[in-house]
Amino acid sequence: MADNNSHTAYPFLGKIDSPADLRKLPLGDLPGVCSDIRGFLINSLAQNPGHFASSMGAVEITVALHYVFNTPYDRIVWDVGHQAYGHKLLTGRRERFSTNRKFGGLSGFPNPDESEYDTFSAGHASNSISAALGMAVASQMNNDSPRRNIVAVIGDASIGGGLAFEGINNAANTPNNLLIILNDNDMSIDANVGSLHRYLARITSSKGYNTLRFKAFRLLKRMHIVTDRGKGIIMRFNNSLKSLISRQQNIFEGLNVRYFGPVDGHDVGLLVRTLNDIKDMTGPRILHIKTVKGKGYAPAEEDPATWHAPGKFDPATGKRPVPPAGKKKLKFQDVFGETLLNLARADRRVVGITAAMPTGTSANILGDTMPERMFDVGISEEHAVTFAGGLAKEGLRPFVAIYSSFLQRSYDQIINDIALQRLPVTFCIDRAGLVGEDGATHHGVFDMAYLRAIPGMVLAAPRDYRALRNLMYTALLHEDGPFAIRYPRGSSNLPDISNPLESVEIGRGEKLRDGSDAVIISIGTSAEDAAKAVYILEGEGISTAHYDLGFIKPLDTDMLRSIGRSGMPIVTVEDGAVNGGAGSAITDFFRSEGIGAEITCLGIPDNFIAQGTVAELKAYCGINTDAIAITVREMIARSKRKTVTA
Amino acid sequence: MADNNSHTAYPFLGKIDSPADLRKLPLGDLPGVCSDIRGFLINSLAQNPGHFASSMGAVEITVALHYVFNTPYDRIVWDVGHQAYGHKLLTGRRERFSTNRKFGGLSGFPNPDESEYDTFSAGHASNSISAALGMAVASQMNNDSPRRNIVAVIGDASIGGGLAFEGINNAANTPNNLLIILNDNDMSIDANVGSLHRYLARITSSKGYNTLRFKAFRLLKRMHIVTDRGKGIIMRFNNSLKSLISRQQNIFEGLNVRYFGPVDGHDVGLLVRTLNDIKDMTGPRILHIKTVKGKGYAPAEEDPATWHAPGKFDPATGKRPVPPAGKKKLKFQDVFGETLLNLARADRRVVGITAAMPTGTSANILGDTMPERMFDVGISEEHAVTFAGGLAKEGLRPFVAIYSSFLQRSYDQIINDIALQRLPVTFCIDRAGLVGEDGATHHGVFDMAYLRAIPGMVLAAPRDYRALRNLMYTALLHEDGPFAIRYPRGSSNLPDISNPLESVEIGRGEKLRDGSDAVIISIGTSAEDAAKAVYILEGEGISTAHYDLGFIKPLDTDMLRSIGRSGMPIVTVEDGAVNGGAGSAITDFFRSEGIGAEITCLGIPDNFIAQGTVAELKAYCGINTDAIAITVREMIARSKRKTVTA
Repeated sequence: MADNNSHTAYPFLGKIDSPADLRKLPLGDLPGVCSDIRGFLINSLAQNPGHFASSMGAVEITVALHYVFNTPYDRIVWDVGHQAYGHKLLTGRRERFSTNRKFGGLSGFPNPDESEYDTFSAGHASNSISAALGMAVASQMNNDSPRRNIVAVIGDASIGGGLAFEGINNAANTPNNLLIILNDNDMSIDANVGSLHRYLARITSSKGYNTLRFKAFRLLKRMHIVTDRGKGIIMRFNNSLKSLISRQQNIFEGLNVRYFGPVDGHDVGLLVRTLNDIKDMTGPRILHIKTVKGKGYAPAEEDPATWHAPGKFDPATGKRPVPPAGKKKLKFQDVFGETLLNLARADRRVVGITAAMPTGTSANILGDTMPERMFDVGISEEHAVTFAGGLAKEGLRPFVAIYSSFLQRSYDQIINDIALQRLPVTFCIDRAGLVGEDGATHHGVFDMAYLRAIPGMVLAAPRDYRALRNLMYTALLHEDGPFAIRYPRGSSNLPDISNPLESVEIGRGEKLRDGSDAVIISIGTSAEDAAKAVYILEGEGISTAHYDLGFIKPLDTDMLRSIGRSGMPIVTVEDGAVNGGAGSAITDFFRSEGIGAEITCLGIPDNFIAQGTVAELKAYCGINTDAIAITVREMIARSKRKTVTA
Repeated sequence: MADNNSHTAYPFLGKIDSPADLRKLPLGDLPGVCSDIRGFLINSLAQNPGHFASSMGAVEITVALHYVFNTPYDRIVWDVGHQAYGHKLLTGRRERFSTNRKFGGLSGFPNPDESEYDTFSAGHASNSISAALGMAVASQMNNDSPRRNIVAVIGDASIGGGLAFEGINNAANTPNNLLIILNDNDMSIDANVGSLHRYLARITSSKGYNTLRFKAFRLLKRMHIVTDRGKGIIMRFNNSLKSLISRQQNIFEGLNVRYFGPVDGHDVGLLVRTLNDIKDMTGPRILHIKTVKGKGYAPAEEDPATWHAPGKFDPATGKRPVPPAGKKKLKFQDVFGETLLNLARADRRVVGITAAMPTGTSANILGDTMPERMFDVGISEEHAVTFAGGLAKEGLRPFVAIYSSFLQRSYDQIINDIALQRLPVTFCIDRAGLVGEDGATHHGVFDMAYLRAIPGMVLAAPRDYRALRNLMYTALLHEDGPFAIRYPRGSSNLPDISNPLESVEIGRGEKLRDGSDAVIISIGTSAEDAAKAVYILEGEGISTAHYDLGFIKPLDTDMLRSIGRSGMPIVTVEDGAVNGGAGSAITDFFRSEGIGAEITCLGIPDNFIAQGTVAELKAYCGINTDAIAITVREMIARSKRKTVTA
């Protein structure tokens, strides 16, 4: 295996410590730079897993952009950082790239705290056009001189999101020179969906007009007509070309954004020439480039969905370690997927909805068996929820599977289109809690705080697979309003899923263990850490009762009353924001009942949490087994002191 | 003035108790029905104010839809209820229409709880296509027989929202017969913005091709070629027409939605014929109709923005009562608008952003004086926030004015595009708290619960104009992250705005009055009710201290500690959801400090609150002066009983 930090292994890349170094190279060296980046990514990601195929497909445009534009003075705004690894390598982070997505290391996404070349946060899709438009407008207002170029790079899946459309629709409204690069690889994480996507395919197959227009433009440029004075001539020329020869109207031009392309996104020389041709034009423009996800690595080109984030692999062969048969660890998402299929088989009203995450949520388990009952709406979380409302209104029973942090996009729709109308929509909230390596933008830590404020919402957190299955079944039987079930990324240590589906009582928690010195109330899978803490404390002679809250809303008021009145100190543990979350709900209940219990709430502190393993982050946030045990010991000591003093 | 419930005044409308009655009339009577609806609306809204101009513009399409389609079996989904008053009159609510927007009366928007003809909640824009698509897909899956037609009616401003685009983009993805009516009146509440809007104007001026195609289609229909068998012929004919004659590509057809129009939206006979022609076609379709906002009432046609919701007026002359000079009551929004202009004059970095609400938020005060410093981005709350992030990133200081309930649309953008990056964006949250007549979809009751969970957010609630002005100035000086200021619809009783701008200490509350029996902590303008309660209690010999919380985040921990340790019973009062709101934050703080104070939190209970006057709703929610006084009395009595018992 190559040493990724040796200069000899990567003769071109090894000499580039910043884009200024890149810009010193002759054009002819750029294919070598691209090749080096690919080799580096393959060797690095083989050992330290990350997002692979998107960045492989964006190598040439990354090199071309930093070659043509004067970064960091000019701004590149990446839409979703999956594609930005090459950008990290070119902008002084090659040596640290082995820390990618690790605790204390590089973020897996562009991160302005990490580098001045990372201009905007890019964890959630479709925000680049709006952010870049803001920068472009600001640059005009600031009279930046020389002109500051702003470039948004957005994929064909992300551009289908409502936020991106709002950005394009607004782009012609105020003076700006925004350049949008549409990186069209014909793929979301899974296969792409939506009409816009089909439209892009059609553009590509009827590129005659655009090619003609573009060639005409370049001819005019060589003739030195492209000056400020000559602009009008070109515009008129373009317009007459359009009306006389073709009359075909491009969808982006319909929105007043000039369209160029499509061009081959893997011809770095062509990209450089094209960017040079259009970089000094005024007004918003879109350059449509066609790329191949996973480009340059055959296994990834053949199966880009798997190679979106393949885990470890052998760089020479592309072989990925296969877990021994029967040992593949079941995940919460699989249990969701299997259970949804079970429910759909038993009840014809059941349908599934995912927003571009069929494999990420395991909604594909239903989709593979009953494709007509599973709807992948693409990167459209707002639409996903309102669409579910329409389905529910006509008697169907939609189960909407969206990651916790992405569901933030649907907050208003959950309130007005579902809860206000008491429509029976089930939200299966995957990736709730700390997600690990994806970091700050992806942790699902706010859902309990923002959902429990919604009237009529049922909000449950299963502690294991059995509970998840039963909650999904219970949700199906619940006719009056929304039902949200939050569960984490990864696996449970209690992998039993043999239970027949049983409904549970809504708003009912469970006592897992008696105790006489203190009480732990755990929320969801925090039950595992809590149970371990109870065991450790037991060894120290501390008898700790353990309850599973079960429902954040409605609360199990009987259970809480009996806990509160026990007089024992209480510790609550949750993998969500402590600020306004489940512990806060419990505290509110005690307050409203006038129960003066001593409570400590453990949860995600009031900070954004960066990337790391879930274990590292739990320790950092003080919600792991040790933290729980320490808190119980402290509370007991404090209450003993009080007793002594009294 | 006509008696709106007499049958003689409205000879056509008077006989229509449901759409079935309408459908019995000959086509020739429909202009009479339309005229009656207009007359009824003018007379009714002159006395009982409501949304005027939109419904006036939608009279013919409303009549035509109920005439052609078999409602309620067929579904009409209105996008934003402004346009749906005529629909209410035709669907059995004529006699109750005088209760429109009143407490216990009709909702000002479509409301499924009110009528089976109201198919979906329609308070927030742009949701109709997604909801109707859900219904259309469900209807196909349910094999409804006879075929159930689903029609979404959306305005040209609403269709620019990201959610609407997501719906259209998804519409071709699964079998459905959705019909979208684009009601294009070339207006939002204020003038419309955005490229799509200009595009629609261009379509209208180049309608030759569509007219030709439509006429050809109708000819084929008359020749009885339009049968299931003949459908293919028509499709091919259309396609060859398109490619041979025009080759112009329509933006909606680019998204695989068949486009018809534009047609005159005030020719009810033409609308009926057109709807009949296209109603039985399969696949998603869009019918573009051109209407005039305020149609049929000259003053409204001339000034549709004012007549969006004009208040009371003289139906004969259109004269609206003018408040005596100098007596026009200043509103919170005006103070925001004037202060923003002051700040912009003093600091060139200051810019304003509104999402289609320049007059509603008074952002137009800046816009009228410095148009280049105020951005109206249209109905695009998501984009508004991310765009502000881009502006802030490049050194500008955006003030984003969005109604509290609409800001729910931007939740994810506030988290990831602003707070995570600690960008200095100020959110001026208008219509926070109970808004009155607009009802459940518009009350701004969740903002404190959902914003206080966000790390790094500063969240303040001014109790009067002076505080609002100082908070805006303080926000401008705050460089590290977002700053949110929530203030209500309407006016303060302390109209002083003469204060020079002063910065205040972030996280600092204020003691307004000492007391020895109990404490009231008020949030924002609840201070007025609290002060009145203190006065009433004083008369009863109860001495009540009064504090203004000032900041929901960060809390004034010194002030709260001193209050908590006083041992007096505490009442908190806020005009937001009690579930997770400011009182909950205070409770959490006391819990974390181990302060066992007795607290009662008054706020909006855990229900959706319908329409009414703000005074009625405050009484209903138990947050008015009386409720505060009663709570203080009860708590004092309870704590006396405890003292006696002990």
